[in-house]
Amino acid sequence: MSNGKLILIPVTIGGSIDMSLPAGNHELMDSCHTFIVEEVRTARRFLKSAGYPYPIDDTVFLELNEHTDPRTIGGYLDPLEKGENVGLLSEAGLPCIADPGALVTQMAQRKGIEVIPLVGPSSLMMTLMASGLNGQNFAFAGYLPVDRTKREKAIKMLEARSLKERQTQIFIEAPYRNNQLMQSLVSVCRDETLICVGCDIMLPTQSIRTLTAAQWRKKMPELHKRNTVFAINGQ
Amino acid sequence: MSNGKLILIPVTIGGSIDMSLPAGNHELMDSCHTFIVEEVRTARRFLKSAGYPYPIDDTVFLELNEHTDPRTIGGYLDPLEKGENVGLLSEAGLPCIADPGALVTQMAQRKGIEVIPLVGPSSLMMTLMASGLNGQNFAFAGYLPVDRTKREKAIKMLEARSLKERQTQIFIEAPYRNNQLMQSLVSVCRDETLICVGCDIMLPTQSIRTLTAAQWRKKMPELHKRNTVFAINGQ
Repeated sequence: MSNGKLILIPVTIGGSIDMSLPAGNHELMDSCHTFIVEEVRTARRFLKSAGYPYPIDDTVFLELNEHTDPRTIGGYLDPLEKGENVGLLSEAGLPCIADPGALVTQMAQRKGIEVIPLVGPSSLMMTLMASGLNGQNFAFAGYLPVDRTKREKAIKMLEARSLKERQTQIFIEAPYRNNQLMQSLVSVCRDETLICVGCDIMLPTQSIRTLTAAQWRKKMPELHKRNTVFAINGQ
Repeated sequence: MSNGKLILIPVTIGGSIDMSLPAGNHELMDSCHTFIVEEVRTARRFLKSAGYPYPIDDTVFLELNEHTDPRTIGGYLDPLEKGENVGLLSEAGLPCIADPGALVTQMAQRKGIEVIPLVGPSSLMMTLMASGLNGQNFAFAGYLPVDRTKREKAIKMLEARSLKERQTQIFIEAPYRNNQLMQSLVSVCRDETLICVGCDIMLPTQSIRTLTAAQWRKKMPELHKRNTVFAINGQ
């Protein structure tokens, strides 16, 4: 008997299923009866809204988040060794990008299990595409430090690298600290540095704007509790 | 009259339309009668296969590639100022990521035109997702130098950075030089460094495998003329 496959299933980030996911994702999603998820409640809700055709109560959910005991994760791949497919769902967007799913995928790779990624929305890529900033060379740095002095030092470093290597630097912040990060950006960056603010991606309030630091300083955006992706190109 | 919008329209990378693009992309794609494209022939073919509902002969195609005179590009945004939407198509995958589209998007941003990115396949993200490598911090470096000595120096630098910053390093090569790049990778990288080779993404022959440099050395893949994405994590 051959092994099952680990299917990486993207999840909507705010927009409708119809705008977010190829219809063809169904075939592989519906082949799974076990799902590795960050939170069971939101995963159930997603599967229902995406038209998963089997009773949710007969479906197995395995939680993978910061509370998961690392020793239990090994067992998550057991169904694969019995020839069954297993789905890995993100909370939002692409699994394994800026989320803890990579752990399980790494295990699957180590065991030689085939991993199949499906197409879906990525707020990082959508911001980068629409930013007009360099998309031939870019980096995603995740979260910057919370402490203001350290954060501003990190921004200086990213700005310098984007200038020296022509590498767009992308990063995010916990939504309730977005305004502080924006404040740090305009106070630390050179006047000419291009800053893209991608806000509420795929929501009706979506806005992806690139301005210089000097321009942003004159009209600061309201980002409090709005999902936001930041990208900079030093000039 | 308000401005039109610049719509960033992803294109299939090998798989079917149904597996590659959300059905909802149609609404905005079909709102465009002018398309900025890298090559007219492939753009026409894509629009036909994606079910674009208007006569292709009534559609305006504006070419943007290495032969385009930079002075003509300014005019590409004229329809937007008349209130019409304009579509920007990539040759394959996401517009503006590893393609020349960013130039036009940058102009649109400078003029305050709204830019709307749609969802589609990205061989970079699909390789990263399935690799099991760090997806919380990663960089795409584009093409490495062609000259072997310079290429191997670049690989050393990327390996060192991936180790020091825990930042996955992603890069590509012209498909007919893939085997040489793979050869350089296994000869330069430390035994324990994880190398992911994502090959023929979304084609029936798709393979995304992560092994250590030492493991690859013992079974080199055949990558000649196959679209391949490489990613490394120093260990």
